[in-house]
Amino acid sequence: MISHKILKRFLLYRLCLIKFQRLGFTRIFSYTLGNEASVKAEQVRKDFSVAGIKGSRRGGYEIEYLLTSINKLFKLDGDRLVVLVGIGNIGQALINYVGFKENKIKIIAGFDLDPSKYTRKNIIPIYHPDQLPEIVQKYSITTAIMAVPEAAGQEICDKLVSAGIRGILNFSPVILQVPEYVVVNYVNIRNELESLFYFT
Amino acid sequence: MISHKILKRFLLYRLCLIKFQRLGFTRIFSYTLGNEASVKAEQVRKDFSVAGIKGSRRGGYEIEYLLTSINKLFKLDGDRLVVLVGIGNIGQALINYVGFKENKIKIIAGFDLDPSKYTRKNIIPIYHPDQLPEIVQKYSITTAIMAVPEAAGQEICDKLVSAGIRGILNFSPVILQVPEYVVVNYVNIRNELESLFYFT
Repeated sequence: MISHKILKRFLLYRLCLIKFQRLGFTRIFSYTLGNEASVKAEQVRKDFSVAGIKGSRRGGYEIEYLLTSINKLFKLDGDRLVVLVGIGNIGQALINYVGFKENKIKIIAGFDLDPSKYTRKNIIPIYHPDQLPEIVQKYSITTAIMAVPEAAGQEICDKLVSAGIRGILNFSPVILQVPEYVVVNYVNIRNELESLFYFT
Repeated sequence: MISHKILKRFLLYRLCLIKFQRLGFTRIFSYTLGNEASVKAEQVRKDFSVAGIKGSRRGGYEIEYLLTSINKLFKLDGDRLVVLVGIGNIGQALINYVGFKENKIKIIAGFDLDPSKYTRKNIIPIYHPDQLPEIVQKYSITTAIMAVPEAAGQEICDKLVSAGIRGILNFSPVILQVPEYVVVNYVNIRNELESLFYFT
């Protein structure tokens, strides 16, 4: 099992590698990659070694091979299905987010308490949250995105967990209580912006 | 100067404190807050002490006082103005984001290359990126949000920096090269979701 911290670095490496590839490079050294990602070269080599990715001290790493290996790590070989709870401004933007489509991430269904959302023209079907267990089990989904108001956060989270969800990407400004086997990643847009005000 | 890491914890503490306050609590102990935030109690006390926030070992901290002190740290006493570059799905959602309004964060203007965005009905004016220096200087803005396609990322970032921006919240999937005095916070939605696929 690779730690959360290392995985995040791999996603960072991938961003950098794609950049180098677009610039025309085919091979890269750990110190070049480390420099771009603000990670020490030894750390880069250690991370790759943990994931069984090989390179040579003289020739560096082949970029294409690195990208394939990283993608494999994140199960990028087929469509990855997720559900989305909360069809507000952020939810709506996520449905249309090109960054997902480009990476075979598919939001298969949305959920919202507001019935007016069910009939609105959307590229995915929108259901009442009570139908979560049904849809999650039908498509064997284990990952969900939450973009609901703060007050509804924990209740929706409990529903997701009891439906079988084990990974949650949470845009709601609330700390979620989950069982140990559930992983939550937080995207708190306001907090990210506020920390900048301190520095500027 | 308080470090970036500590500041992020303060924003986390604030989320937890608001939750406790809504539950009816008026005072809190460092270990209760630490437990909710998954931070050690000693760390909580140390962080507060660094920021000059006082409590007593027996009575704990007054929640209202903690919130006021944290808000002061992030200059929450007046409107905080930002500009937004990139009026796509994410940009549009940010313009309407209630989490900003609730916290006196005001997106004062948007910028996009697509002229059709200038006439569209928006609650803020949308300009061509060439007008960035003019608007930034007129309102003395130091913080910007970027939600542009990957390919445009670095170019827009350079424009922002030369216009006087010193803090960037970046939603574009690209690592930005900035001078040392500029702080960039990254929100990479796809990466946050992808790291979950590994665990689930």
